[in-house]
Amino acid sequence: MADYETFELGNLVLQSGATLRNAKLAYKTHGTLSRSKDNVIVYPTFFGGQHTHNEGLIGEGRALDPRRYFIIVPDMLGNGLSSSPSNTPPPYDRARFPGVSLYDNVMCQHRLVTEQFGVERIALVCGFSMGAQQSFHWGALFPDMVERIAPWCGSARTSPHNFVFLEGVKAALCADDAWNGGWYDRQPGKGLRAMARVYAGWAPSQAFYRERVFLNMGFSSLEDYLITGWEGRYLQLDANDILAMVYTWQHGDISDNPLYEGDFLKALGSIKAKSLVMPSRTDQYFPPEDNEIEVGHMPNAELRVIPTIWGHIGGGPGRNPEDTRFIDDALKELLAS
Amino acid sequence: MADYETFELGNLVLQSGATLRNAKLAYKTHGTLSRSKDNVIVYPTFFGGQHTHNEGLIGEGRALDPRRYFIIVPDMLGNGLSSSPSNTPPPYDRARFPGVSLYDNVMCQHRLVTEQFGVERIALVCGFSMGAQQSFHWGALFPDMVERIAPWCGSARTSPHNFVFLEGVKAALCADDAWNGGWYDRQPGKGLRAMARVYAGWAPSQAFYRERVFLNMGFSSLEDYLITGWEGRYLQLDANDILAMVYTWQHGDISDNPLYEGDFLKALGSIKAKSLVMPSRTDQYFPPEDNEIEVGHMPNAELRVIPTIWGHIGGGPGRNPEDTRFIDDALKELLAS
Repeated sequence: MADYETFELGNLVLQSGATLRNAKLAYKTHGTLSRSKDNVIVYPTFFGGQHTHNEGLIGEGRALDPRRYFIIVPDMLGNGLSSSPSNTPPPYDRARFPGVSLYDNVMCQHRLVTEQFGVERIALVCGFSMGAQQSFHWGALFPDMVERIAPWCGSARTSPHNFVFLEGVKAALCADDAWNGGWYDRQPGKGLRAMARVYAGWAPSQAFYRERVFLNMGFSSLEDYLITGWEGRYLQLDANDILAMVYTWQHGDISDNPLYEGDFLKALGSIKAKSLVMPSRTDQYFPPEDNEIEVGHMPNAELRVIPTIWGHIGGGPGRNPEDTRFIDDALKELLAS
Repeated sequence: MADYETFELGNLVLQSGATLRNAKLAYKTHGTLSRSKDNVIVYPTFFGGQHTHNEGLIGEGRALDPRRYFIIVPDMLGNGLSSSPSNTPPPYDRARFPGVSLYDNVMCQHRLVTEQFGVERIALVCGFSMGAQQSFHWGALFPDMVERIAPWCGSARTSPHNFVFLEGVKAALCADDAWNGGWYDRQPGKGLRAMARVYAGWAPSQAFYRERVFLNMGFSSLEDYLITGWEGRYLQLDANDILAMVYTWQHGDISDNPLYEGDFLKALGSIKAKSLVMPSRTDQYFPPEDNEIEVGHMPNAELRVIPTIWGHIGGGPGRNPEDTRFIDDALKELLAS
C-alpha cells in the first residue's frame, strides 16, 4: 500500500505550452491541520528524492513536529511519484515528457494547499536543494501567503556554473547508446553509472574526501562508496525521470514567470517572508556566494552558513547528524519568531 | 616539419612492470645551455597539453627568458608526442598501453637531462597542473639536483576528491559504446563530448561562470563556450591518450616509489629545493587547502595563492593575462633568489 496521497491536477497546462492531461501530484502529510488552519508547513522534495527522503527532519521534538504542525510534503513532478516520464501514459510519456519548471511545480502545490486543504496562510516553506529552490519560488510567487521560508543548499536562480555541472551529468547519462534518445527498453545502466560517478565528485566536498568521511558511513573503501553509494543510488531511478528533474533544475529562476518577467532583483525584493537562507560552507554547486548575493536583495532575509565539510550533501535531511541538528535548530528559531 | 626533438628511451621498464620498447620522449628546448651548464629550467607539460601549450610563459623579458636560460620542455608520456597509446606500435598500442606514473615520467626526463645534455644541476623545475605534479616529483626524487621548484595549480599527491572528479571524466568518455574498451576504429565522439562537458564544470570556477568571463574570450554564449571551448578541444585528442594521462594523474604521488615507499610526509620533507607553491584561489580540484597541508611539511617552501576567479584554468600558461603576469612575477622573484 502506498504511504502517500495523490492530488488530481486534471489538465495541467505547463509554462512550456504542453498540457499534461490527468496530471497527478503525489504528497504526504504529517500531523493535523488546526481548526484555524494556521499551522501549515510546506516542505517540497529535492532532486532524485521522494517524500520519504525528507523525513529525516520530521518528528516529535524536531522543528517540524507533527504534534504541532501540519506538514505537507509534495513530491516534485518528474520524481516518479508525481507525474513523470516513467508513469505518464502516451503520448506525453518517456522521451516526450515535457519540460516542467519550478514555477509549474509550485503552482500545482498551491492548488493542493488551497483546493484540497483550504489553506490561506503558510507558516513556513522549507526544503533542501531543489526543495530550497521551490521554497524561494513560494516566497516570490505568493508573498502575501507565506510567512517564512527556509531554503538550504539551494538558490533562487540556478547559476550558470550549476547549469554547466548539470550539462556534464546529462552528457554522461546520454553518452550511453542504450539511452537511445530516451526510447530505451531497459534502463541505460552504463550511462546511469557514469552520471553517478560524475555526481559523486560534486555532491560531497574536497574536504569530505580528504578526510575520508565515507569510511564512517558504512562504506569499505572509496570505490565501494562510488559503486554502492552513487551507482547503486542512481540505478534505482528512471533515466527519463532524472532528465526531467535536471531540466527543472537547470531552468530554476524565481523571476521566469508572468509575475516578474525575468526581473530577478524585483522577484527577490518581493519576498516578504521572513527568510533564513542556509548554504553549506563547502557546497560546490550552490556555493554560499550565490546566496549571499540573493540575500542582499531580499528585504527580510538572513544568511546563515552551515559550517560543514560535507559539501552539498550535508544538507540532506537526516544525512549528517551534526548538520541536521544545525538546520533543525535554525528552523525552530525561525518558527518561534 | 616537427618543431621538437625526440629522445630515444630504448626499453623503458615502467613501475607497473611493463616494458615499453623503443619508447620515446618528445621535448623542445628554448635558449642555449651555458658552458657551465648552470642555466637549466625544466618545464613539463600538463594534462592534454603539448610543449607548445607551455609557451605562453616563455619569452624575452619573461622569467623563462631564452636569452638567459636553457629551458627544456619535456612532453608527458601519453600526450600523443611522447610514447602514447596512439603512437605506440603493437603489442602495447591503444587499449594495451600500460599505466605510466609521474615517477616514470620524471625518471625519463632525468635521463634526457643527464644523458642528452650532461646536466647535473637544475635551476628550476616548474609547471602547471600535472606539470606542477611533475615539479613536485623532481623535487622529491632529485633533492640534490634541483635548486628550485615552482608548481602551480597542482599537488604533490592527487587527492581522493581529485581522483573522484577524474572517475567522472573517465566514466563519461567510456559510457559511449563507440569507445569499445579502447578498440575503437573511429574516435568515440559522443564520449569525448560528454567528458568535455563534465570537464567544463570543473576547470573554471563558479565565479568565472557567474561573471560570464567566457564572453570576453571569443565565445558568443555559454553553449558556444561548451561546444567550441570544450567539446572542440577534446575532440582533437585521442581517447586512449586521454585515458593514459588520466591514469597518470590519478596515480600521482611523490612517495609512491622505491625511495619513499609510500611515506608521503618523508617525501615532502625531503624536498630541499626552494619551493614556491601557487594554487589558484578558486581551483575546484587542486584547492589551496591541499597545497597548504603539503607546504606545511616542506622545509623550504612558501605558499602563494593566485588571486583569481578563473579557477584552475587561471594557471594555464598565457591563458589569462593577469594570472600569467602573477605567475611570471613570482618565477622572476624565485629565480633571483
